[in-house]
Amino acid sequence: MQTAIFDKMESEVRTYSRSFPVVFTAAREARLTDEQGHEYIDFLAGAGTLNYGHNHPALKQALLEYLAGDGIVHGLDMWTRAKRDYLETLEYTILKPRNLEYKVHLPGPTGANAVEAAIRLARLATGRHNIVSFTNGFHGVTMGALACTGNRKFREATGGIPLQGTSFMPFDGYLGDGSDTLGYFAKLLSDASSGLDLPAAVIVETVQGEGGINVASVAWLQQLERLCRQHGILLIVDDIQAGCGRTGKFFSFEHAAITPDIVTNSKSLSGLGLPFSQVLMRPELDQWKPGQYNGTFRGFGLAMVTATAALRTFWRDNTLEQEVQRKGERVAEHMQRMAAWLNGQGIAASERGRGLMRGLDVGDGALAGRITSEAFRQGLVIETSGHAGQVVKCLCPLTISDDDLLAGLEILEVSIKKSVALHSVA
Amino acid sequence: MQTAIFDKMESEVRTYSRSFPVVFTAAREARLTDEQGHEYIDFLAGAGTLNYGHNHPALKQALLEYLAGDGIVHGLDMWTRAKRDYLETLEYTILKPRNLEYKVHLPGPTGANAVEAAIRLARLATGRHNIVSFTNGFHGVTMGALACTGNRKFREATGGIPLQGTSFMPFDGYLGDGSDTLGYFAKLLSDASSGLDLPAAVIVETVQGEGGINVASVAWLQQLERLCRQHGILLIVDDIQAGCGRTGKFFSFEHAAITPDIVTNSKSLSGLGLPFSQVLMRPELDQWKPGQYNGTFRGFGLAMVTATAALRTFWRDNTLEQEVQRKGERVAEHMQRMAAWLNGQGIAASERGRGLMRGLDVGDGALAGRITSEAFRQGLVIETSGHAGQVVKCLCPLTISDDDLLAGLEILEVSIKKSVALHSVA
Amino acid sequence: MQTAIFDKMESEVRTYSRSFPVVFTAAREARLTDEQGHEYIDFLAGAGTLNYGHNHPALKQALLEYLAGDGIVHGLDMWTRAKRDYLETLEYTILKPRNLEYKVHLPGPTGANAVEAAIRLARLATGRHNIVSFTNGFHGVTMGALACTGNRKFREATGGIPLQGTSFMPFDGYLGDGSDTLGYFAKLLSDASSGLDLPAAVIVETVQGEGGINVASVAWLQQLERLCRQHGILLIVDDIQAGCGRTGKFFSFEHAAITPDIVTNSKSLSGLGLPFSQVLMRPELDQWKPGQYNGTFRGFGLAMVTATAALRTFWRDNTLEQEVQRKGERVAEHMQRMAAWLNGQGIAASERGRGLMRGLDVGDGALAGRITSEAFRQGLVIETSGHAGQVVKCLCPLTISDDDLLAGLEILEVSIKKSVALHSVA
Amino acid sequence: MQTAIFDKMESEVRTYSRSFPVVFTAAREARLTDEQGHEYIDFLAGAGTLNYGHNHPALKQALLEYLAGDGIVHGLDMWTRAKRDYLETLEYTILKPRNLEYKVHLPGPTGANAVEAAIRLARLATGRHNIVSFTNGFHGVTMGALACTGNRKFREATGGIPLQGTSFMPFDGYLGDGSDTLGYFAKLLSDASSGLDLPAAVIVETVQGEGGINVASVAWLQQLERLCRQHGILLIVDDIQAGCGRTGKFFSFEHAAITPDIVTNSKSLSGLGLPFSQVLMRPELDQWKPGQYNGTFRGFGLAMVTATAALRTFWRDNTLEQEVQRKGERVAEHMQRMAAWLNGQGIAASERGRGLMRGLDVGDGALAGRITSEAFRQGLVIETSGHAGQVVKCLCPLTISDDDLLAGLEILEVSIKKSVALHSVA
Repeated sequence: MQTAIFDKMESEVRTYSRSFPVVFTAAREARLTDEQGHEYIDFLAGAGTLNYGHNHPALKQALLEYLAGDGIVHGLDMWTRAKRDYLETLEYTILKPRNLEYKVHLPGPTGANAVEAAIRLARLATGRHNIVSFTNGFHGVTMGALACTGNRKFREATGGIPLQGTSFMPFDGYLGDGSDTLGYFAKLLSDASSGLDLPAAVIVETVQGEGGINVASVAWLQQLERLCRQHGILLIVDDIQAGCGRTGKFFSFEHAAITPDIVTNSKSLSGLGLPFSQVLMRPELDQWKPGQYNGTFRGFGLAMVTATAALRTFWRDNTLEQEVQRKGERVAEHMQRMAAWLNGQGIAASERGRGLMRGLDVGDGALAGRITSEAFRQGLVIETSGHAGQVVKCLCPLTISDDDLLAGLEILEVSIKKSVALHSVA
Repeated sequence: MQTAIFDKMESEVRTYSRSFPVVFTAAREARLTDEQGHEYIDFLAGAGTLNYGHNHPALKQALLEYLAGDGIVHGLDMWTRAKRDYLETLEYTILKPRNLEYKVHLPGPTGANAVEAAIRLARLATGRHNIVSFTNGFHGVTMGALACTGNRKFREATGGIPLQGTSFMPFDGYLGDGSDTLGYFAKLLSDASSGLDLPAAVIVETVQGEGGINVASVAWLQQLERLCRQHGILLIVDDIQAGCGRTGKFFSFEHAAITPDIVTNSKSLSGLGLPFSQVLMRPELDQWKPGQYNGTFRGFGLAMVTATAALRTFWRDNTLEQEVQRKGERVAEHMQRMAAWLNGQGIAASERGRGLMRGLDVGDGALAGRITSEAFRQGLVIETSGHAGQVVKCLCPLTISDDDLLAGLEILEVSIKKSVALHSVA
Repeated sequence: MQTAIFDKMESEVRTYSRSFPVVFTAAREARLTDEQGHEYIDFLAGAGTLNYGHNHPALKQALLEYLAGDGIVHGLDMWTRAKRDYLETLEYTILKPRNLEYKVHLPGPTGANAVEAAIRLARLATGRHNIVSFTNGFHGVTMGALACTGNRKFREATGGIPLQGTSFMPFDGYLGDGSDTLGYFAKLLSDASSGLDLPAAVIVETVQGEGGINVASVAWLQQLERLCRQHGILLIVDDIQAGCGRTGKFFSFEHAAITPDIVTNSKSLSGLGLPFSQVLMRPELDQWKPGQYNGTFRGFGLAMVTATAALRTFWRDNTLEQEVQRKGERVAEHMQRMAAWLNGQGIAASERGRGLMRGLDVGDGALAGRITSEAFRQGLVIETSGHAGQVVKCLCPLTISDDDLLAGLEILEVSIKKSVALHSVA
Repeated sequence: MQTAIFDKMESEVRTYSRSFPVVFTAAREARLTDEQGHEYIDFLAGAGTLNYGHNHPALKQALLEYLAGDGIVHGLDMWTRAKRDYLETLEYTILKPRNLEYKVHLPGPTGANAVEAAIRLARLATGRHNIVSFTNGFHGVTMGALACTGNRKFREATGGIPLQGTSFMPFDGYLGDGSDTLGYFAKLLSDASSGLDLPAAVIVETVQGEGGINVASVAWLQQLERLCRQHGILLIVDDIQAGCGRTGKFFSFEHAAITPDIVTNSKSLSGLGLPFSQVLMRPELDQWKPGQYNGTFRGFGLAMVTATAALRTFWRDNTLEQEVQRKGERVAEHMQRMAAWLNGQGIAASERGRGLMRGLDVGDGALAGRITSEAFRQGLVIETSGHAGQVVKCLCPLTISDDDLLAGLEILEVSIKKSVALHSVA
């Protein structure tokens, strides 16, 4: 394994290659292969970007056909057949069946692009500047998006520019079971001296990914929607990680039967891992003037092609939804068993999640890190999240085979037991 | 041509489809084809993203081989063979031969990502917050990048968050020929009551693309470098549009024989139009802590593969540089002739540019718009830039055939004559 | 009463003259006289600026003697005998007896000056930028101070500059009796992804004046101090309104036996109503470089003279403290009786306060406004506070005679009864 | 001279007591007396606050009478007889005779209060956020005012909060004689990509005091007014230091016959050195809602009384104006002679100013500091200004006797000669 060029050239900012210090060469479905020929089951899946696994043949086929026909790879925001196909497929496969009426903005290839466009639109549409975000929320690291992101590691890396234009509220369950976090938010809203500037919008993940697989309850989401309506605040659901089927529905907010004013998607939107993002907005909010938000890669044709193929392959019926449901329960059961075992060892642990976005909270970042390191040695790529890295999270492909899923869970279980033994010694 | 879905679904933010209201379906080299089978010569080339033309066979071949082997499409910042190949090729094909010693940060797929990472690094490395940008500069529209961008259309679309942390200085020639714009900057720097907070960095385009093909002279760039060294200010060259050979050298700053502390690349970096960007930095500036700047698509393998192929195909010798030089002169001559003709019509016009980044300033955005509209009717995709859209710009592929280049220039000439006739009537 | 010149010349920003539409001509002790010769008992006392009443003879005498000797009226930050006397008196009368060791910064004549200097010092001393303020806090309206102030009326009047560098936490009791507001703050501090940037300082009023006479309990203040120590956060007590004896101690924080790192005083500091303010700071925090914070009126000699006289007249023994205690209890009893009566009328009302900083919360700004208007008609100047103006507050001079205090309370009682009668009708 | 208490208690922020390390005890007209009985001629005059000298008998008399009658010392923004007298006197003595129609806002006692109120009003009235200030401008140090102030010493003392909402333009003459600084501003305004956000207002001192006695020419001021009108930008003249007769007219802008939209006054407004400030605004700009800008000391009756007396004593005819003119010329002649002598010594020096706001630029802060130190030893209080402290400035009382003026100038001359001798040695 030759890594000298990485040592010489690559910025210290690199992070995953520290957890997984091998050179990967190929990948298929839920498996990664490194240069030595070792295979790894992938429970990270591009941090939620590869919901349909690596190199899914149907998506790849669509891409190859498009390339064969010299399709438009890069088209700015010109009209292309690829974009038309994508919009039509989105409309008829996803939006119409869900009774959603949205206009679409393709602001550029990253989730942060979508978040920046969404909050800017909310400000333009309301004439207010404040955006409410939630504890442990993660919405990207460009300056506009970063202001909505709770993590100090990123926030302190702005180089001395204080982030502005956002206020943080406690997420569902943040103050313990039964705490009324929205009651606090409601009080601040109704008190004109609370210090909370009346927000343009609330931006929320229904399940916080980077924040530690924190699940907002259906009741909380519905109450949040009501509170927004009551105060004329726009509701933005950032569905970049939880969307595209991850929780068992195409949009994660379908579980709560709410209708956000604005939705952001990215990560698994292109299906094959190509950079792509979108903003969906209620038509009357589309206050943009031509060209007011731009970006060189907002017309990446290849991503539109694979995104279209993904919608057609997986979202014409509810097979995938049922699969996610079934596999999610399976992961939950296993993790609950692991949590119970940990509790038996005197380690407070618990399982949580929705669909195939699941986490095992082991209460301690050091232990969680030991578990994922051990798992990697045993052939499982899996990562932690949460404010202290204390949550081992499962973001396996939704299309993972039962065998791989089970094999991965078994590696996880073994790794936990081994890590706890070592942990106790340490 | 079916466009109903665009009318229904697409945000009003769309802009190029207003200038070129057809549905494009395919593209090869310097030509675009629409749904009706019409062909267009492309003098826009993805706003500088397609320096090697559409679907260049060598780059596409590399991509197809990678896909055939189930290469890693999306790898976060893990180590992959594709990334190793890219770094090695960059080092041995580009940096070493130019005696440049840089570390590399791949911050995500967009130029704005690179700009945000670059200015943040400059702030972290210096402990200062101010960034100096220049009149008519364009560096992207995410909040951090937008603060460096001069254009009010974008700046006013933040929804009420004033942009902060930047100061604007006049670009070379901004105050007329012979004006000493750096003398003004130098005076503000040396005057502790000037209101200019001592900058962390200067960010500059050596040739401003969106700003109107404004060319900084070699002397000005050298003086700027000296001024930065003198005051301990980092020099960032934003080579997103002018880099990758556009001006006749791989890096646009090679013309001035200066060595920036930090360089940003994107647009044509992947060669085939795939989203990709990088930050190059002097090794001692690499103050990043692991993971302090992240982004889901910072490990887009396909772009690394085509970027590697592009370096290998075009940058192993100086053939392309000479081609750009030769074709650039050709465009310049034609445009100078057009300018002379316009002057003869009483319209102040002039040509400017470096390499194949060239503009014809017709002094009037309405006239320029008329010219590009007429050109499109005649089969040429070409756009305007500049603060009033007064500059017709040529950003044709560097690899364009002489026939297509000539044909495009002839359409431009005819369009100018026709537009002036109509313009006079109006 | 001639008011034409006011109508013509005075900005619409005026406010107290709307509540008290007469022209005042003279004042003595707790009484104001208007142009028609009507006398008013003053329960407003310059919003807490006239703790020793109007034109107290001892303070006035000191002023007259100083003027007679052509003392320095305006001395910038030069050394003057008046400043020396003030510093010595402060040290030996106030600080030493309380075992407080502070350095003194006289930053200018207003409370906002003191707050701006205090928070800036905290930022300089810690290298952090965030300041935590509390719901319903009021700390002034210059841009730096306003960022710490909760009231939307002021916050929205910046003309589109979002306030930055502060985060708001819930004040003691904000979420109802028994709620653990500091537990929430503690959780945000210990969670690195909470969105709360680690603060340089907390700024707090021990009794919030403008916010509605909200009293922080001794236990809460002590816990706040511990929390600050634990996280290396500086504790600033803004004692501008609650200090100078208002709560029954010279410093309001003496009740809790805590030691702030920084203290701000103003309002009653000069004793006679002259503009004056100070920042007290632990000596090791004095990071100022010469002249880094300035202001034309930071050496207002007349205020130093009356401030010295006030300390000498009232703070050489504990007589005044006992008086405040005694009168405060008297006001409390009366207000509790009024609250009970209101409760009997079906109006939820309650009394609160500390020393002679007391409020009667009638739950409704319209009713409170009716009460104070009626009181004015009957000869009592009294105002409301609180986020909805729902609290009738008593800030009478600490030196008020028992007769005037009783007379004022009786007017208040009658006004309440009359207002409720009218209120019920309305 | 006892200064131990200063050493122990006073913040390091102190500055003038470093230049003048004596304890002052009394002052009359243009003379200060220290504790040892030494007299000093005062060419600093409270940094422009004591235009009528120390303890002027007419002003003091008015103050004593008011105190004798137990006038309202502190009245918030209630109506008082003192305020009515002030407004009427201002209207009939100052505004009417000059054909000025302004409404008045008394925002609090400091100049920074007036500046904060003025720029906020401009933002509210225009809906724009940017304020243009000028190189070497000084407008106060509260966060809002500081953003308009050029001096890095203050700007860097915010503790890491970048100042926002302002852009700096070059002042008249900043780029050398004959440079067209407003041409630069005009170009930025008319170029929509210049990076200059369209301003709400321009704030300007007609003669910059702290910035180095930089005098804007009449032509420049008139052109600035035209430029503002043309672009719908409000013109704010900050007349805090240059107003109240300092330049030979009550308002400094009278020399240019321009009519600002908003004017700020403070410093010498109260006449006797009492804290006082005002904002004058065209009536239609008075967009304030009741109470949107407040401050405890906005109704300081004593200052209104002395301000009224000052207007009545000095501004009922043009005697003072003529005196300032005459004495100003005298100072100018002397300083020109000194400059000529310095030039003869090989030291580039020059004189500049308007009325009795005059400076001798000796090109070097160290030399200027040496001169003022020597002057102090010889009995003259005089200070430097300018970005490098290179300008010895004369701000003597406008009412100074010819003998004191001459004596002061002679000390200055001797000090220069002595300092140059020492300077040459060093």
